[in-house]
Amino acid sequence: MEMATLQDLFVENLKDLYSAETQILKAGPKVSKAVENEDLRSALDEHLRITETQVERLERIFKDLGEKPTGKKCHGMEGLLEENKELLGEDAEQEVLEAGVIVGMQKVEHYEIAGYGSAVTFAKLLGNDDAADLLAQTLEEEKNADKMLTQIAEQINVQADHPA
Amino acid sequence: MEMATLQDLFVENLKDLYSAETQILKAGPKVSKAVENEDLRSALDEHLRITETQVERLERIFKDLGEKPTGKKCHGMEGLLEENKELLGEDAEQEVLEAGVIVGMQKVEHYEIAGYGSAVTFAKLLGNDDAADLLAQTLEEEKNADKMLTQIAEQINVQADHPA
Repeated sequence: MEMATLQDLFVENLKDLYSAETQILKAGPKVSKAVENEDLRSALDEHLRITETQVERLERIFKDLGEKPTGKKCHGMEGLLEENKELLGEDAEQEVLEAGVIVGMQKVEHYEIAGYGSAVTFAKLLGNDDAADLLAQTLEEEKNADKMLTQIAEQINVQADHPA
Repeated sequence: MEMATLQDLFVENLKDLYSAETQILKAGPKVSKAVENEDLRSALDEHLRITETQVERLERIFKDLGEKPTGKKCHGMEGLLEENKELLGEDAEQEVLEAGVIVGMQKVEHYEIAGYGSAVTFAKLLGNDDAADLLAQTLEEEKNADKMLTQIAEQINVQADHPA
């Protein structure tokens, strides 16, 4: 595809994020199902619900731009979710598995923090304030999810270090 | 592989990071070569030099642990670098390409921030202070690289929005 302008790059990035979010929606429930720790499972489930809203925000931005969100596969997210899938297939102690799930999900969050961070910057530069506002909301949610995972990790890591 | 303890997960994460760093060392020069902006190219080249030191740190930690760093392919980094490779193949204006390179490299940095962040936490919990110190140095370097890219982006994004 041709990328002559920042607008083209902006749209490409949004398509990448859309693909990333829809991949998360598909893979997320399997990760959540493998988790027994209630705090972690409820954080994952809550984030899946938030992800649905984030997808809707992207769809709204695409509609305003007169563009379609589909047609791009986010290979970055594909690789991150492949790692998570590998982890779920390991012969692991439950607490250790859950500590690993957190690492994997924080990589997912950080992918999105970088992706939405750039998208907000591009939207502002392009004078698309509505998109910038919507994308900034999602960026904030991703940062909060990362912080929440760090908090839950404090408890799970100690359990993983000293299994029952 | 079996993951019975936090130590096993720690070693797996280190292998993942080792694979990630060596993939960056291989792919990085091609990205740098495609960049004309001097600030960006010198930041990328400088970070490649730092990456060599980061690889040596990991090798030192593996040696102390009596483990080998090889045997795991980091699919997350594979996907991120695949995205960068795709971008370099696009029919893009130079400034737009460079704005895209920054997005891609910030995703790489954020992968490492998440990965090393967890690795530092695990090392501390496991009482491996030497490893924690070395990994914390790398974590700080990755955070600085991300900030540096954000600074350079401010200049390049404006050029991409108003090409010469």
